[in-house]
Amino acid sequence: MELNLSESRSRSIRCIVKLGGAAITCKNELEKIHDENLEVVACQLRQAMLEGSAPSKVIGMDWSKRPGSSEISCDVDDLGDQESSAFSKFVVVHGAGSFGHFQASRSGVHKGGLEKPIVKAGFVATRISVTNLNLEIVRALAREGIPTIGMSPFSCGWSTSKRDVASADLSTVAKTIESGFVPVLHGDAVLDNILGCTILSGDVIIRHLADHLKPEYVVFLTDVLGVYDRPPSEPEAVLLKEIAVGEDGSWKVVNPVLERTNKKVDYSLAAHDTTGGMETKISEAAMIAKLGIDVYIVKAATTHSQRALNGDLRDSVPEDWLGTIIRFSK
Amino acid sequence: MELNLSESRSRSIRCIVKLGGAAITCKNELEKIHDENLEVVACQLRQAMLEGSAPSKVIGMDWSKRPGSSEISCDVDDLGDQESSAFSKFVVVHGAGSFGHFQASRSGVHKGGLEKPIVKAGFVATRISVTNLNLEIVRALAREGIPTIGMSPFSCGWSTSKRDVASADLSTVAKTIESGFVPVLHGDAVLDNILGCTILSGDVIIRHLADHLKPEYVVFLTDVLGVYDRPPSEPEAVLLKEIAVGEDGSWKVVNPVLERTNKKVDYSLAAHDTTGGMETKISEAAMIAKLGIDVYIVKAATTHSQRALNGDLRDSVPEDWLGTIIRFSK
Repeated sequence: MELNLSESRSRSIRCIVKLGGAAITCKNELEKIHDENLEVVACQLRQAMLEGSAPSKVIGMDWSKRPGSSEISCDVDDLGDQESSAFSKFVVVHGAGSFGHFQASRSGVHKGGLEKPIVKAGFVATRISVTNLNLEIVRALAREGIPTIGMSPFSCGWSTSKRDVASADLSTVAKTIESGFVPVLHGDAVLDNILGCTILSGDVIIRHLADHLKPEYVVFLTDVLGVYDRPPSEPEAVLLKEIAVGEDGSWKVVNPVLERTNKKVDYSLAAHDTTGGMETKISEAAMIAKLGIDVYIVKAATTHSQRALNGDLRDSVPEDWLGTIIRFSK
Repeated sequence: MELNLSESRSRSIRCIVKLGGAAITCKNELEKIHDENLEVVACQLRQAMLEGSAPSKVIGMDWSKRPGSSEISCDVDDLGDQESSAFSKFVVVHGAGSFGHFQASRSGVHKGGLEKPIVKAGFVATRISVTNLNLEIVRALAREGIPTIGMSPFSCGWSTSKRDVASADLSTVAKTIESGFVPVLHGDAVLDNILGCTILSGDVIIRHLADHLKPEYVVFLTDVLGVYDRPPSEPEAVLLKEIAVGEDGSWKVVNPVLERTNKKVDYSLAAHDTTGGMETKISEAAMIAKLGIDVYIVKAATTHSQRALNGDLRDSVPEDWLGTIIRFSK
C-alpha cells in the first residue's frame, strides 16, 4: 500500500478542492442544492483541469434519465473518433451544507453512542443525506465532462479514534486518480474506535489527503471572499489577504498590515465563530500550509475562484485578486 | 485483517440476500424502481431480521426531505426511551435491473479499455446510475427501520483481474456488520488489472461474500417463482424445486424427478438463457452451495420469499413452498 502511495505522489496531484457546503447548498433551505453555483463551479473546475487545447465538445458523463423524461440523454454517437481530453489530477471533497446537518445534530451522531436507537437511526439518516448530496455533485461535475467517481469515506474504510483519523484506505483513492478519474469525497458519518461513531468533516479529510497525496495547492471554495478579521457582514470587516504560517503551526496576518496586534485579530476571529467554522478552517488550512502546500480560501463561482483553481497564484498574486492565501513562511 | 474476518465469522452472519434487479426495478422502463415490490421486500426483510418480540413502533431511518415538502420527516421525539431492536446479521446485495444496464452496454464498460473516451464516460455514467439505485434501496430499507449502510464495491476497494475478484476490503464490511448495520452492496463498475475496467456483477459479489463471511443461508429474490426447466412463460415449464450440488461442483435436479436426462435439462436451461442470466445464477449458486451454504431462489414479495428469508426452510421444506433450493449433497 505504501508503495502505491509513493508512486502516486511522484506522479503529482495538482490540486485538492474543497467545495464548501455554504457555497454549493442553500443555507436556509434544508437539502437544497445551489444549482447555479454548482454549475459554475463545475465549469471552472473543468477549465482548470484541462491541459492543452480544449476539445471542441464537452462529453457529458451523466447519462441518467432526467426528471419528466422516459429517455436517457446520451449524446455519444461521435465519441469514437474523439480524442481523450488530458486532465491534470484533481481531488474534490465537499462539505454537507444543508444536507446531513439536521440529521446529525438532531441525533447527536458526532458525540457517538451507537447503542442508543436515536444515534443509530441518525447515523443511517445522516449517511443517506450526505450520500444523496454526493451523488448530485458527482452528476453535476460529470455533466461538465469531468470523469468523477463518488467515494464515501465510510465505504473507503475511513474510521476515527476520538475524532482523529485512525484509518483510511488511500490506495483506492490513489488508484482512482491514476486511472484518470476525479475522486469526490465528502464529510461523512464514520465509525469511531472510542466513541462508537462520529462525524468526519470535509476539512479533516482534506488535511489527511493533503498530507498523503502532497498536492501542489489546495483551494477552499466558500460563500464569502475569504477570511475576514470579523464577521464579513460588519461594515468595517477587513479581508485578510495573506496569512503566514510558522514552523510551529502559529499563524499571523501579513497582508494587510493590521494596526491591532495579532492577538486581537485572533480574538475577533474566534468571537464571531462560536460554531468553530472559520477558526477551524484556518487551523486546518495552517496545518496544510505547514506541509509547504499553498492554501487559497476564495469565493466560489467568481473570477477569483477561477484563478485560484487554475493555479495562477502560485508564483505571484495579482493586486486585484480577492481571497485569502495561507502559506508557509520560514 | 484476517483476524477481524475470523472474528466476524465466529459471530455468525445469518443471511446474505440478493435483491435481483428484475424484482426491484421495472424491466421495461429505464431507471424505474418497482416501488411496491421494494416496499414489501423491505418489510419482509425487517420481519426476518427481528429477533425476539417486535417493538411497538418502526423507527424510520430515512429523515430526508420528501419531494414537494420543505420539511424533514423525523418522528423521533420518543426515541429516548425506546428499546433498541435486536436484529440478526444480514447483508444485502442488489443487482442493477433497468439501472446501469443502458450505460454499461452502450459504452462497453464490461470489455474494458479505459483509454477510450466512450468507455471512460460510460464508466462514470454506469456508476452514477447504479449508485442512484443503491441510494434509493438504502432509503427504502431505512424507512422500514433497517439500519442500512450503502457501500459501493468500487469505494470498498473491490477490483478484478480479468473479471475475477482480485481484491476486496471485507474488513470494512465486517466492521459495519459488527456495529449493528446492514451493508447494502451492489453490482458495480470497477477497475480491472488486466482489462482496465469491467462490470462486477452482484452474483459474483455474493459468492465472494458467502465464501468469506460464511452465512447460514443465501436468498436470491427474483421475479419468477424459481428456476424452471425451460422459459417460465412456456406452458409446460416445470419449477425445479431442489438441485443437489456435488463435491466437484456439478449439479442435478433431485425434485421433481424429471423423466429427461440431466443433460437435456442443462440444454434446455441454456437454450433460453443466451444472456447467461439463469445459467450464471445456477453456477454461482452451485458454488455457494458447495461451501455447505443453502441457497434459496424465490419470487420476491411473496409468502414464499418471507419463509425463505426467515430461514424456515433450513430444517425441512414444506410441501406448499414454491421456489428452488440449491444445496450441497455428498
